[in-house]
Amino acid sequence: MNVSIFSVLAALLLASTAAAGEAPAPAPNGISLPVGYQDWRVIGTSHREDNNTLRVILGNDTAVEAARTGHTRPWPDGAMLGKLVWKDATHPAWEKATVPGEFVHVEFMIKDAEKYRETGGWGYARWKGLDQVPYGNDAGFVQECHGCHTPVRDNDFVFTHPAVMP
Amino acid sequence: MNVSIFSVLAALLLASTAAAGEAPAPAPNGISLPVGYQDWRVIGTSHREDNNTLRVILGNDTAVEAARTGHTRPWPDGAMLGKLVWKDATHPAWEKATVPGEFVHVEFMIKDAEKYRETGGWGYARWKGLDQVPYGNDAGFVQECHGCHTPVRDNDFVFTHPAVMP
Repeated sequence: MNVSIFSVLAALLLASTAAAGEAPAPAPNGISLPVGYQDWRVIGTSHREDNNTLRVILGNDTAVEAARTGHTRPWPDGAMLGKLVWKDATHPAWEKATVPGEFVHVEFMIKDAEKYRETGGWGYARWKGLDQVPYGNDAGFVQECHGCHTPVRDNDFVFTHPAVMP
Repeated sequence: MNVSIFSVLAALLLASTAAAGEAPAPAPNGISLPVGYQDWRVIGTSHREDNNTLRVILGNDTAVEAARTGHTRPWPDGAMLGKLVWKDATHPAWEKATVPGEFVHVEFMIKDAEKYRETGGWGYARWKGLDQVPYGNDAGFVQECHGCHTPVRDNDFVFTHPAVMP
């Protein structure tokens, strides 16, 4: 009887954990997915026509404050930028409008000039798909990120220029 | 002497008002610019290649809640959608990336099924440029908005389909 009750409780516990949604695994360099990034405020958007993706760039409060006051060369420690990426889709009622299709990934830049000194002061991480699977086989994946961002070193390694808004 | 002091005080008061930034004038249909819309959360983005503009679609809390729970046919009363529009620009370091250039306008859809019954339950308003000048010569401008949105009446007159995100 006790064993039976234990089994039922264990099953309930497992079901509860699954229902609540487990946190995605951290990136291979130890960075955890920032909780609640979907609620961050907007800094910009872009459309990459070389790989047919649409992007929205969000920032945490530190990043948005820096973006709106022009303090982005360099961005302050604690700034986090999150880029949500979707495959291009065509709007069903407006064929000349490209809109977000399949969700590709979300990727982050986290500023800590000392901690991430070897990669320009930025920690990089990416989670793929709606399942948010960490990108990269080992911690060395950040060299790929850093290498691609090196051409914009004069903009503190950030491609995004905050969109002008009232 | 009293007149002189009054003049100085009046001048200071005027300068102070201008420095604080006057609220933009309301739209010709009486809708006021929603305060703080720049802080709303993101619902989508789009790239209109017929008029070369990039857009970010934000929503107030009611709209974001509806978007994330799939309650958008119809959207609930109180939902407000704000669309920020920029002219296309080319990223200076990535020529196949289109990024926000000059700010064009911000436009809103405000849901109140009863109040705005004659235009599909939506109140429309737009403010042009960084100076946020109201669009439209008189209240009849909303017929232009409503007319353009009529092809998407099956989507509650809204072009935006909320972008899928984790």
